[in-house]
Formats: sequence, C-alpha cells, structure tokens
Amino acid sequence: MDERYCIIMAGGIGSRFWPLSKDTCPKQFIDILGTGRSFIRATFERLLPLVPANHFLVVTNASYRELVLQHLPELSPDQVLCEPMRRNTAPCIAYASWHIRSRCRDAQIIVTPADHIVTNEWAFQQTLSSGLQFLSSPDHRHALLTIGIKPSRPETGYGYIEVPVSDNEAVLPVVRFKEKPNHQQAEAFLSAGNFLWNSGIFLWNLSGIEGALRRHLPELSNIMDEGASRFGTAEEQDFIDAAFPRCPNISIDYGVLEPATDRYVIPADFGWSDVGTWGSLFTLTKHDDNDNALIGRVLTQDCHHSVVNIEEGVEAIVQGLDNYLVAYRGGALLICRMHDEQHIKEWVEQLHSSTN
Amino acid sequence: MDERYCIIMAGGIGSRFWPLSKDTCPKQFIDILGTGRSFIRATFERLLPLVPANHFLVVTNASYRELVLQHLPELSPDQVLCEPMRRNTAPCIAYASWHIRSRCRDAQIIVTPADHIVTNEWAFQQTLSSGLQFLSSPDHRHALLTIGIKPSRPETGYGYIEVPVSDNEAVLPVVRFKEKPNHQQAEAFLSAGNFLWNSGIFLWNLSGIEGALRRHLPELSNIMDEGASRFGTAEEQDFIDAAFPRCPNISIDYGVLEPATDRYVIPADFGWSDVGTWGSLFTLTKHDDNDNALIGRVLTQDCHHSVVNIEEGVEAIVQGLDNYLVAYRGGALLICRMHDEQHIKEWVEQLHSSTN
Repeated sequence: MDERYCIIMAGGIGSRFWPLSKDTCPKQFIDILGTGRSFIRATFERLLPLVPANHFLVVTNASYRELVLQHLPELSPDQVLCEPMRRNTAPCIAYASWHIRSRCRDAQIIVTPADHIVTNEWAFQQTLSSGLQFLSSPDHRHALLTIGIKPSRPETGYGYIEVPVSDNEAVLPVVRFKEKPNHQQAEAFLSAGNFLWNSGIFLWNLSGIEGALRRHLPELSNIMDEGASRFGTAEEQDFIDAAFPRCPNISIDYGVLEPATDRYVIPADFGWSDVGTWGSLFTLTKHDDNDNALIGRVLTQDCHHSVVNIEEGVEAIVQGLDNYLVAYRGGALLICRMHDEQHIKEWVEQLHSSTN
Repeated sequence: MDERYCIIMAGGIGSRFWPLSKDTCPKQFIDILGTGRSFIRATFERLLPLVPANHFLVVTNASYRELVLQHLPELSPDQVLCEPMRRNTAPCIAYASWHIRSRCRDAQIIVTPADHIVTNEWAFQQTLSSGLQFLSSPDHRHALLTIGIKPSRPETGYGYIEVPVSDNEAVLPVVRFKEKPNHQQAEAFLSAGNFLWNSGIFLWNLSGIEGALRRHLPELSNIMDEGASRFGTAEEQDFIDAAFPRCPNISIDYGVLEPATDRYVIPADFGWSDVGTWGSLFTLTKHDDNDNALIGRVLTQDCHHSVVNIEEGVEAIVQGLDNYLVAYRGGALLICRMHDEQHIKEWVEQLHSSTN
C-alpha cells in the first residue's frame, strides 16, 4: 500500500443541483441522498481500505480548502491542493501527479471525482484492487486504465468506451473512447454489448501518466517541469498560482486518453452513478408507494413521481404535485417540473440578477 | 379621550395559516401581507388616534405576553391581561371590562380582534368616532354597538347582521344576528341589501356591557364580581387564574348580543377583512401579471393564480404551479392546491404525529 496514492478531484461547483448545491457549498460537500455522508466523505471512505489516509490528495478550488478539511479531518492541510482557478481535468491531474512525483517516483495512482455514488463498495474495492494488480505487472507499467461501467440503459449523459466484441477478460484493451452519444447511438451501444460507460475513475502508475502527459500534452508537462523542484516544498502553491493560468484548459480524456495507445478498461458493476441530474437522483433514492423520492421530514398528500429534498431541521407539507422537484436548503427553495430541470441554472441567474 | 379604552383580543392560535402562523407565533404577530407591520401592531396604530396608549388592554394567552410587549413596546406589562387558558370572547371581554371598571366607571370601550385588515384607516377612525359619539348621548348609554361591514360578495365565512330595510341612518338598530350562512343564504342576504357582515368590532360604554353581562350571563358576571376588589391590584392575576376555568365557554355574540335588546350597528365601508383564509389573503395581496400574489424574494416561471409567501432572508424559484399556495417560514414549508386549504390543519397534525 505504501506506493498507492489517490487523487480526488473536487473542484466542481454543481450549479445543476441548486439549491442543494451552491457555489458556496457545491455538490461534493452535500449529503444529497440523505445517507449521513457527503459525496466527498463517501468517496474517501470507500477508498480508505486501498490507500493510506496520508496518501490522499484532494485537488480543489482554494475557496473550498476549509470545507475539504472539515469533511476529511484525517487529512493534513498539505494534502489539499488548491487550484487558483477552474481548469479542466488534465491540469488538475498533472498538478497532483507532479506533487506525488516529489514524494514517490514509483507511485500507483487512483484518480476519482469526488461526487459519485457507489452502492456496492466491496465490489468497487475488488475492482480497483484487480486494476492495481494489473498495473503492477511489468508488461503494464505504462498502462492507462479506466473503470468502465456495464451500461443498464441507453444513457446519453455519459461518455462510452468501446471494447473488443466477445472478450471476457477482467481487463480489456480500449478500442476507442466515444463522447456522449445521442439517444439513437446510445441505444445502438447498449444493444451491441461491447460498450461501457466511462466512469471518469482512472488507475495508472506515475510513470504511465507522466509519460503520456509528456507525449500528448507537452505544453502542460513542460509547465509542470518548470516547477519540478518546488513541488512538495513551501513554494509549490506560489508556483501553481503563477503557472496554472498558462495551462491548457483540456480534459484528460481528450488530451491524453484519446490519443494514447496503452489504454485498458476494467468492466465493472458496482452500482455506480455520477448523480449529474435530478433525474439520476430520483433513480437512486428509495421511493414511497406513490413513486416519490423523499428526503427529510416531509408529509406528502396526493403527490406522485416527485422528488422532495428538505434539509434537516425543516419540515414540509407537499400536496398535489406530479413529476415535480422540491428542494429546500440553506434559505433557498426550488419548486419545478422535473422535466424542466435543465433550466434551473438560468433561473438561478435570473433570480440573482433581479433587484426584487 | 380620557374615558376611552380599547380591548384588543389577541388570544387566537391561527392554525389555518401554517406555516406563516404557528402556536409559537400566531397570526396576530405575523406580517402576513408583507406590509412591514404585524396585525396586532397595525390594529394598535389605527386605534391610537382614538385611544390613549395607556388605555389599551391586550387580552391574550399567558404564553404570548412577551410577544405582545415586543410588538407594542408602548404598553406597560400591566396592560397585557393574561388568560390562563383559551375561553371564548365573553369571558375575555368580561375580564377586561372588570379590569377597566377598577380604573374608570365611565369608560367608553372599543373591542377589537387583533388580526383584521383595514385598508382605509381614516374611514375606520371616522366610523368609530361617530360610534363613540352615539354612545355619548344619554339616550344610548346602554347601547351595544357593532361595526357592520357592507358586504361585497356572498361570503359564507362571516356572520351577518340584519338591519331594517331602506333605513339610511348612520346608526341602525339590529333586527337580528345571523350565524355563518350557507352559500344560498349568503346570496339571498347580499341581494336583499339589508344585511351586513359582523366584523366582531364592538363599541359600548362600560355600564352598557356590564349591565348586559349581568342580565344575560349572570354566571359570568357573578364570577367577576367575586374578585371585584382584586381587579387592578397585584392579586388580579391570581384571581383570574383561579376563576377563569369556571367561566362559561361562550361567545359575546351568542351569550350577550343575541339576547340583548339595546343593539345597534354602524354600516361601514373601510376595506375590511378578517383574513381568515388563504383565499382572503390572496384577494388582499397585490397580484402580478399572471395573477400571482407574491411576497418575498421569489422568481416565478409559468405560475398562475398562486400565492407564494416566503420569509425574509429566503429566496425561491417556483415554476409550473396553477392555483397553489406556497409558504415558507421558520423552518416549515407548505405547498398545496389553494382549494384544499381547509385540510392544512389536519395535515399539520399528521406531520407532527408522524415519527418520520
């Protein structure tokens, strides 16, 4: 375990889940499902059997540093890496990788977003363990490994990974990455059977990702190299604050995984969701007899197929709604039709720009 | 003015307006219309031109004593008369009347609930002034005068007062009091033209109400007489606490005004409502272009004919509701169809009896 590190990417702002999630307290810090744990806490706890607590690194915006330490009190402040601005996943991963490089050149790294749901944590740990084992083989030292989720529906909100037909190995080569499909494509992927959802959870050796970054995103690895001697020192933050604005705003998928060759995927099935929409939240929450997903102290009357999510300490009576979202948190209330959730972000902007 | 007194009856608990109004802070203490003043404050202020501040008496439940003094800081604590339990209006008025009797046998008394709306305060004051003048005439020393509101719709939520047909005097004799009618009766009252709404605002001399109580509710006046020497002293509260449970639970309308003979009514038109229902609140509040009555920081989208009432400091986005009530206050949220408001009280009981 001594060479295992985990990078938790926790910089998102989650505007789609207003008012549960806000700029001041985005989704990863919220217990959106009412499980008693925030997303970031759950992420940390399900990885703790695999990685020592002092080998976690959380990459986030500077403004969330204190929130991270509140949710993960096991971490010391130097385990929270602060981006001075939002960039994409490639700079985030490069930053954390060069930080790890200053501590351990032989590191095995798990990269994960902070805001996913996993319902079968044991299967999750088994899957990641087998991936780390795969990376330990001399043949796969430079492999870039993605966790692929066996699809259960023609989801258009995820990217897909194509794998060879009829290959039942535990680890498969990637044929190609596919961006989010339209509904027809998603149906075709599902019936073809050789497509997996791209979970955004990656495993690789430091040498593997470092080499791939140097090969496919040299403009990024060059910037990191400029500060190589300052990573892991008191000067790291100053260097990052100055260097980050120059980094390309590019995802690890697009910048590295798509052009790379040594790519593998582990097909997995551990009850996964990235909880990107209220619809997915509705799917994940226990339903009552009228197909409502209720969190909090709520009395419903004549309500059907609705989500009601009320923060602790608040009580609610909700009557006569079909297919609605109701959420109250931190002095903000949302009531809207579930199928109009894509407008929430624009309504919030409208509410905040009105003088009324 | 030195003989004028005002009794404000402020003991109600207002469960129909949950969550704006609760046991811990009933309707009279709430600024339900967003005017900047609570009902009790508005009641006090519109009577202050007629009655000296130290001649107001507020009769309320002991648990609301501090709330009364917060809302009416002009009053000294001995102007708040505390009922040890909820009784009806006859014991409330008898209590306050015997208290006044200990200070001024020649008092002229205005009795008013604490939770009414009056939109034309000047007309209100003119009406009450003319009533007090009427009572000053030696012919009407013992008259019991009710303010009657000219009806604008066949309202079934109010009691009515029948007056002689085609009598255009400023003060009319009462033919009879009518309890809340059904819709058909209310229509008939409205078209007949000689029926007024019973506002529950009364004017009389102390001698008038004292005599009427002795005549029609001697079981109540006898109890008050037992403590006559203790009213206005430090022993008053102890006496009331012991005596009140023995008082008959009866309204002043039923116990005194119906059997009395010397009854008069002033037809008035000063924009009055007892705001007894959400429907009446909807009627009283300014509407937006989509016929919504909005109070608070609210963005509505595709909403019509709905009430949204959100406490200060809270913001709301409400979409896709027609004919709904939405209210948030003090950690409690209500969403329901406007036409189902009569169930609110039972839902609140259900919510509070559930263990969930």
